[in-house]
Amino acid sequence: MDYPNFAFDITRRDPASRARLGTLKTPHGTINTPNFIFCGTKAAIKNLSPKQMREAQSDIILGNTYHLMIQPGAELIEKMGGLHEFTQWDGPMMTDSGGYQIFAMGHGGVADEIKGRNRRDDKSLISITEEGAAFKNYRNGERLLLTAEKSIDIQRKLGADLIYQFDECTAYHVPREYTEGSMHRSHRWGDRSLAEFERGHDGKQALYGIVQGGVYEDLRTESCAWTRDKPFFGTAIGGCLGGSTEEFYEITGWCMPQIHPDRPVHLLGIGAIGDIFACVKMGIDTFDCVSPTRIARHGWALAKGVPGNRLNMRNAQFRENRSPLDEHSPLAASREFSKGYIHHLFKAEEMLGLQILAQHNVSVMNQLMREVRAAIATGTLDTLEKEWIVD
Amino acid sequence: MDYPNFAFDITRRDPASRARLGTLKTPHGTINTPNFIFCGTKAAIKNLSPKQMREAQSDIILGNTYHLMIQPGAELIEKMGGLHEFTQWDGPMMTDSGGYQIFAMGHGGVADEIKGRNRRDDKSLISITEEGAAFKNYRNGERLLLTAEKSIDIQRKLGADLIYQFDECTAYHVPREYTEGSMHRSHRWGDRSLAEFERGHDGKQALYGIVQGGVYEDLRTESCAWTRDKPFFGTAIGGCLGGSTEEFYEITGWCMPQIHPDRPVHLLGIGAIGDIFACVKMGIDTFDCVSPTRIARHGWALAKGVPGNRLNMRNAQFRENRSPLDEHSPLAASREFSKGYIHHLFKAEEMLGLQILAQHNVSVMNQLMREVRAAIATGTLDTLEKEWIVD
Repeated sequence: MDYPNFAFDITRRDPASRARLGTLKTPHGTINTPNFIFCGTKAAIKNLSPKQMREAQSDIILGNTYHLMIQPGAELIEKMGGLHEFTQWDGPMMTDSGGYQIFAMGHGGVADEIKGRNRRDDKSLISITEEGAAFKNYRNGERLLLTAEKSIDIQRKLGADLIYQFDECTAYHVPREYTEGSMHRSHRWGDRSLAEFERGHDGKQALYGIVQGGVYEDLRTESCAWTRDKPFFGTAIGGCLGGSTEEFYEITGWCMPQIHPDRPVHLLGIGAIGDIFACVKMGIDTFDCVSPTRIARHGWALAKGVPGNRLNMRNAQFRENRSPLDEHSPLAASREFSKGYIHHLFKAEEMLGLQILAQHNVSVMNQLMREVRAAIATGTLDTLEKEWIVD
Repeated sequence: MDYPNFAFDITRRDPASRARLGTLKTPHGTINTPNFIFCGTKAAIKNLSPKQMREAQSDIILGNTYHLMIQPGAELIEKMGGLHEFTQWDGPMMTDSGGYQIFAMGHGGVADEIKGRNRRDDKSLISITEEGAAFKNYRNGERLLLTAEKSIDIQRKLGADLIYQFDECTAYHVPREYTEGSMHRSHRWGDRSLAEFERGHDGKQALYGIVQGGVYEDLRTESCAWTRDKPFFGTAIGGCLGGSTEEFYEITGWCMPQIHPDRPVHLLGIGAIGDIFACVKMGIDTFDCVSPTRIARHGWALAKGVPGNRLNMRNAQFRENRSPLDEHSPLAASREFSKGYIHHLFKAEEMLGLQILAQHNVSVMNQLMREVRAAIATGTLDTLEKEWIVD
């Protein structure tokens, strides 16, 4: 299978690690990697317009198949001209396969952006069969079935540049037998995803395969080989990445030398700044995470070189603070509003505060990725990491 | 009293009505009148940054003394460099005296932006004496006293360009005797406001007097004469404007020929599009109202030439509508997002929807005022009114 309108070129490799610089070309533009993909779950970045995302120097955003198939529906978005036209984001875009959310909700785990609507005792997953996953529509209780073919069909209607095979994301507590069986089923779903993708392939989209295998090294090895040998454009590291940071790095470290070396690699759902440094050094090219805009809604401002890389703007220490979030930021909002004003906006429950912090946090993540790329170019990634991460 | 850094020049009068074009000069810039003043009640326009207000071509905003004295407090805002520096709005700004909200809440009436926090059975007004108004802090129950001197002192600390005398806004149901006594007390408060203003006058602010007198023509006449003879920079039509639109227009119509003819005239709290046409023709120069951003939060988009001048974007009729709110708008958000997308944002409770409609509504009000000014210049106000207001 050819991807004539896509390309991934590795332009430089870090001699001290597996980190690499690349360019990822899509029909909606070329981005430099490593890069961060912002989550526009329900066809919108929380509190930010495409214009504000551009002001914060964002390159690429992501939509969620699970949420969009439920509301407003893939057919509607197709009628409206696709996700780019619908949202007015004209840059590169990615959609996931829908699998992650179905299973995360089904297991009663973190329910991402719909947290609060779906309680742990209200599991929505009905069953997983060879055919696909049956689940309840969280809005109206209707029974829905998502299959490999359906996931690809929905993602085609949405029209993002980079799309995903359908897969099951297994939980940490399941036995090895379950993980193994699920992985093989995800591989069969991957084959069906490829077949369905190829049937409608018009060159406008490129498909990523997903490495499964949970916490088991031999299964990860098998899944890496499977993705490597299939005509995917990119590779994602998916599934359960263990119960601790150490295990997550260990599992990712197993996979990276075994996947296809020339394809772009996406790490699903990871976005903590410390994890980004660790994973860039393992060779990850793109990341996505809801956290920059989510923590903004709780009053947290991302910051370089402070413990935890964030400041709680609700804290009374900022009440009379006349300094801005970052006087050197390229983003006007980060340079111009004082911390005291942002503190006031949160205390007074003024929605402008959410918007200012969301745009600031997006800008900080983009600044981080620009600095990471510059540090790979100059071989100074460890030095940069020490500037960002402090105790 | 001189206002050396302020000026109001009437540049053209409509031969067919009392409508007039003017320029209102302040230390933070000159605005053309008639114009609309947007309410940034708690030191922020709901959902919009100063940059977004400028994109929507806004000229002037207003802050509320009552809300700001409670949160974050006038002393804090003064320490932070004043309201302009605090909010990063660098254009002309107005603050009210605090009287309106104390009395509106005291009477258990509309409580503006804090609606929902303050129920009708939770009246916050404790007493009105010659000294001032005692009321409860809605955040912590603390007893506060607002006097003419305190109101001017707070407004000086806030630092808006155009500020107000302290006054009582009487309710519709009170007897004539109460209205008359209250009006005379407001006049005495006005004298005290002028004395306090003059004591600290540094040329950076200009003071408006307020016409009271409720629904009684002879009282209005007396109050017009009182404001006219005092060294205020501007005049506001305040107090109870009756129980119907007809009565409101009648009362305003009594006042306009009797107030100082050369001073700018502000109509407090009025902002419906139909009322703006009627009142511009009576000679009003500036308006303020929370409605453009408030109705945005409920999904209403302001529109020219549609019944009621607004569209409910939550309505299912917009679900598949690919047309923008206004393809000819100077505001990108109004031209670029489809009605169907905005409908989706409201159905999906995406906060971006609030932001888009708030900016759109602000832009529409500014467009209205630009068109009103152009129509006064060309003597076509009636024609313009027919374009905006339809059954």
